[in-house]
Amino acid sequence: MVTKRPTMAEIAREANVAISTVSKVLNGHTDVSVATRKHIEQLLADRGYQRPHASRRPGRRSDLVDLVINELDSVWGLSILTGVEEVVEAAGLGLVVSSVHNRESLTRRWLESLLARGSQGAILVLSELSEHQRAELSRRSMPFVVVDGVSQPPPDVPSIGATNFAGGYAATEHLVGLGHRRIAAIGGPEQLQCTRARIAGYRAALESAGLVADRHLVRYGNFHHDGGLRAMAGFLALPDPPTAIFAGSDQQATGVYEALRQAGRSVPHDVSVVGFDDLNFAEWTAPPLTTVRQPLHEMGVAAARTLLRIIAGERIESTRIELATRLVVRESTAAPALLPL
Amino acid sequence: MVTKRPTMAEIAREANVAISTVSKVLNGHTDVSVATRKHIEQLLADRGYQRPHASRRPGRRSDLVDLVINELDSVWGLSILTGVEEVVEAAGLGLVVSSVHNRESLTRRWLESLLARGSQGAILVLSELSEHQRAELSRRSMPFVVVDGVSQPPPDVPSIGATNFAGGYAATEHLVGLGHRRIAAIGGPEQLQCTRARIAGYRAALESAGLVADRHLVRYGNFHHDGGLRAMAGFLALPDPPTAIFAGSDQQATGVYEALRQAGRSVPHDVSVVGFDDLNFAEWTAPPLTTVRQPLHEMGVAAARTLLRIIAGERIESTRIELATRLVVRESTAAPALLPL
Repeated sequence: MVTKRPTMAEIAREANVAISTVSKVLNGHTDVSVATRKHIEQLLADRGYQRPHASRRPGRRSDLVDLVINELDSVWGLSILTGVEEVVEAAGLGLVVSSVHNRESLTRRWLESLLARGSQGAILVLSELSEHQRAELSRRSMPFVVVDGVSQPPPDVPSIGATNFAGGYAATEHLVGLGHRRIAAIGGPEQLQCTRARIAGYRAALESAGLVADRHLVRYGNFHHDGGLRAMAGFLALPDPPTAIFAGSDQQATGVYEALRQAGRSVPHDVSVVGFDDLNFAEWTAPPLTTVRQPLHEMGVAAARTLLRIIAGERIESTRIELATRLVVRESTAAPALLPL
Repeated sequence: MVTKRPTMAEIAREANVAISTVSKVLNGHTDVSVATRKHIEQLLADRGYQRPHASRRPGRRSDLVDLVINELDSVWGLSILTGVEEVVEAAGLGLVVSSVHNRESLTRRWLESLLARGSQGAILVLSELSEHQRAELSRRSMPFVVVDGVSQPPPDVPSIGATNFAGGYAATEHLVGLGHRRIAAIGGPEQLQCTRARIAGYRAALESAGLVADRHLVRYGNFHHDGGLRAMAGFLALPDPPTAIFAGSDQQATGVYEALRQAGRSVPHDVSVVGFDDLNFAEWTAPPLTTVRQPLHEMGVAAARTLLRIIAGERIESTRIELATRLVVRESTAAPALLPL
């Protein structure tokens, strides 16, 4: 259903205020009474008001969109950033990048900055988007898209993700196909949606192969090197250790490598290892890491394209896009050795 | 010497034009005759005109600075970005990030964008800053600072670097101290200033220890994994291979690891390896990599602070700042095995 979106003037008329008052509310100025502000915000939301920036002055190089990320210091986020920058640059817009370091106070400040500089929209790469943050963005009619690596936002929020279940399935199926029977999995933090989906994929692949998922062979980490190191040390202490590991992330896989090196075991002769993400360093590990490629650059591209369509006033067909993961086989996986460890 | 900087009005009076004409020239508008533009540009340069943005409206959140980088897709550049973002965010400014992919056309476009959006200044992380680019920035009185990982800009350009010679010296001294006598070095591209300084440091440390630098033990790569892999394969083919390697970057070091793994040699038992940079993955290699830490985050911080000082109209004492490198000893280096390889 296509409904005509109201103009600022129509909202002002309906609220019986000046257009400048509506503009003040949209731009977060504080010199409007609380009652008036609330009334206007309600009208804007009810009538589906949308900022006309993009259509009024398309492709002006001074126009900006924002990328907000929890922590800049991760190769994971960098890959998304490259995709976003590519699309935003090609559209002749500037990309303002900021990091909120998981601090709620910075998130508020960022929202004020975004309004003050007249940003046309935002791409959010946040581990959690709070109800409050979402409400603030909606109140200001600020278009936004969420890239979720870790949790899945509510269905009405435009979001880009990856097929985590299929990735966990493919990794495990590959190990089963090589002849492994005792296959362990390391998840990220247990409460995260992506961890659950990857581990569910692992379990489903084992079941399809008629194997029983041994609960001692699933551990949860933190997606980082030390999480993989600790989990693998735990597996090695089992009376009957696994011969293959689905590591949950490439960083965890490097921790698995290190635990095996410390124990004098070699990859893949003694133990096969599969990562998740295919970050740039996955090719540089010794041996090069077999991993599930998460198309992070392409997720950035898709997020930016979706945002530009929303800014241009287009209706998007689906608020949720999941891009396909893909197994990349390198040299860290092989058939199990004949003798048990 | 402190000279009073002229205002736009003074420049206009001297050129016998309207203030708006000077403003047009500063902002790159094309509706000014070539002769007038050239005359005004010359005056601006001669009189040391500086844009007054920052002092007029300090810390407005809509104010922007730009970071321009050759390629976003590198952990190296990411580390610099995190430092820049930290300072810019704290100053209440927005950071526009763009990548020029080594394409001259994009560099021109970026310069237009920067003027159109009224950016207050720019931090350039470019492998080469052309004479043309520098002239364009100066003509527009646009403050800028160069972060050089690879080449050293002319002395009048504000720039931030690292002590590459000292880093090469420290890496080699460490290997000599462990008892190694046949120590090889892998540089980045030979023509780069940073490669020359690191290799010079390596040679100086050998000489200090009374060792002769064997010319067969120095190879040049490309700073990437494959460069390290090829160089190490070459060293292993020598009649008397080295027992220790100073790799010119962490990425090259991962290539050295892989060449050794393929040859059935272990790190550090058979060969010790030192990297350069201390990128985040250096801790995750198996074994964790001994490396020369280049303070990339801090270089970003220093670049942003210097830029903000220039924008605020402060005179900076030194146009060249070199931050100290530091050896970080992890597990990839040990005394040589008693038997030759």
